[in-house]
Amino acid sequence: MSNEGRAPRMRSSVSRMAAASGMEWLKSVKGVILDMCGVLYDSGEGGGQAIPGSIEAVKRLMDSGLTVRFCTNETQSTREQFVQKLRVMGFDISVSHVFSPAPALVRILRERRLRPHLLVHDGLMAEFEGVDTSSPNCVVIGDAAEKFSYQNLNEAFRVLIGQEKPLLFSLGRGRYYKETDGLKLDVGVFMTALEYAGDVQAEVVGKPAADFFGTVLKDMSLQPHEVVMIGDDLVNDVGGAQSCGMKGIQVRTGKYRPSDEQHASVRADAYMDDLAAAAHAILTSSPTTER
Amino acid sequence: MSNEGRAPRMRSSVSRMAAASGMEWLKSVKGVILDMCGVLYDSGEGGGQAIPGSIEAVKRLMDSGLTVRFCTNETQSTREQFVQKLRVMGFDISVSHVFSPAPALVRILRERRLRPHLLVHDGLMAEFEGVDTSSPNCVVIGDAAEKFSYQNLNEAFRVLIGQEKPLLFSLGRGRYYKETDGLKLDVGVFMTALEYAGDVQAEVVGKPAADFFGTVLKDMSLQPHEVVMIGDDLVNDVGGAQSCGMKGIQVRTGKYRPSDEQHASVRADAYMDDLAAAAHAILTSSPTTER
Repeated sequence: MSNEGRAPRMRSSVSRMAAASGMEWLKSVKGVILDMCGVLYDSGEGGGQAIPGSIEAVKRLMDSGLTVRFCTNETQSTREQFVQKLRVMGFDISVSHVFSPAPALVRILRERRLRPHLLVHDGLMAEFEGVDTSSPNCVVIGDAAEKFSYQNLNEAFRVLIGQEKPLLFSLGRGRYYKETDGLKLDVGVFMTALEYAGDVQAEVVGKPAADFFGTVLKDMSLQPHEVVMIGDDLVNDVGGAQSCGMKGIQVRTGKYRPSDEQHASVRADAYMDDLAAAAHAILTSSPTTER
Repeated sequence: MSNEGRAPRMRSSVSRMAAASGMEWLKSVKGVILDMCGVLYDSGEGGGQAIPGSIEAVKRLMDSGLTVRFCTNETQSTREQFVQKLRVMGFDISVSHVFSPAPALVRILRERRLRPHLLVHDGLMAEFEGVDTSSPNCVVIGDAAEKFSYQNLNEAFRVLIGQEKPLLFSLGRGRYYKETDGLKLDVGVFMTALEYAGDVQAEVVGKPAADFFGTVLKDMSLQPHEVVMIGDDLVNDVGGAQSCGMKGIQVRTGKYRPSDEQHASVRADAYMDDLAAAAHAILTSSPTTER
């Protein structure tokens, strides 16, 4: 039996499955936004490693005619360095297709003429080159990892409490992520800590902020209902995308936990084993894709 | 003019002032609970220093016939070491009159047969002597200060997330306190962080928990309406005491900030400049005191 012979049968079987399980929406997908850490790769020592099948899945999606963008809350390195790391793993990704919080925040700081106290990873500092950090009048936190020491948190807190109207920006609001050696606390945990300490509500730049997703959709020239977000974070990827009118698929890789499927307030439009399975479901359902 | 001649005039003037300003309740005070850090002393290098007038104020209150107890969320040392530090500063305080969270928590751990993962200050570890900490099934955090590192927070988080029903105990829920070299983040900030990370609500042992105040009131053999709490923390000292039916005075020392007097939800029954002023107001109003 030839490959050509197998493919149509598989498509028709997935299409029937989609119809039967209420996933007809897969047919109207014209664009895909991919979360990166936990979907494409697991981070860890030496930069991490690709999740099996994800390199090919990204290639299939990009070759299919769908509009594909990448949307990460990664703030441990500049966007350029981050994309370079993924290229080394084997992903063929362009920097201009990757959306991350730091460049978006730098625009906000410039527009509002703010001088930040930066509690961010050393690897991210280059994104803030040229930003005035003298006499800070706001605090910016990213995923600073080991730099989230008691002393550094105290310093950030003192800047906040010294302002008449404290202003805190957080590059994302994730709870935790998975590295190859285990789960690690993400920036949202320290955002919550400083919110409580400084009696302030943070402005989140990055997922799940609607402004952030809006910028990506604009770049894709697509309407929200034409786009599906694929992520391992139920609340920030799936819930954030759904709040903007997109569909959301949670993959069972990265930080996924079985209890996510019984979450009190967020329900994904589909749960799939991994990106390879999600890409397969989309590519065998959407009539706009070139197969 | 003799001292004997001056004293009655001062009393009667304070009494008139109390009546005029709606503070007649001062007359029915039979017991006083004193917060310690920020009221008796400011903590810092070398153990900190007594707040001017507070040593004499404590002595006057204790000599007056009022029932006096001390209630602290201090968790950087054992109760014995803590009282010893205050004795060195000049305070004449008995260990049995001091209520702190760690001994109360050890009773709870024993009653519920729990094995804690301890993220507490090295100075507090002796309080947990004999407590089984193998294969931990809950997390206990105190004011661990420098020990609140990213690595230690990750460890505590992994214990939480590894439980089917995560259980987090926090020794207090303070936002920050004042040391001689500036404001420092308190345990409540890291409690909030771990609550968010582990999707769990902490059980607070210490102020403002009603159980904790209840133990102190029982020891005093007084009814809540007969007791006033004096603290520098509007929410945990004053608000906590008020929730139990006590009165609450906020002193303008320690972590006090002028904005506290416009707080959205907590209003002290009185604001006083310091413990000396508060003691004076109580002693010159209450008919039960021996002057």
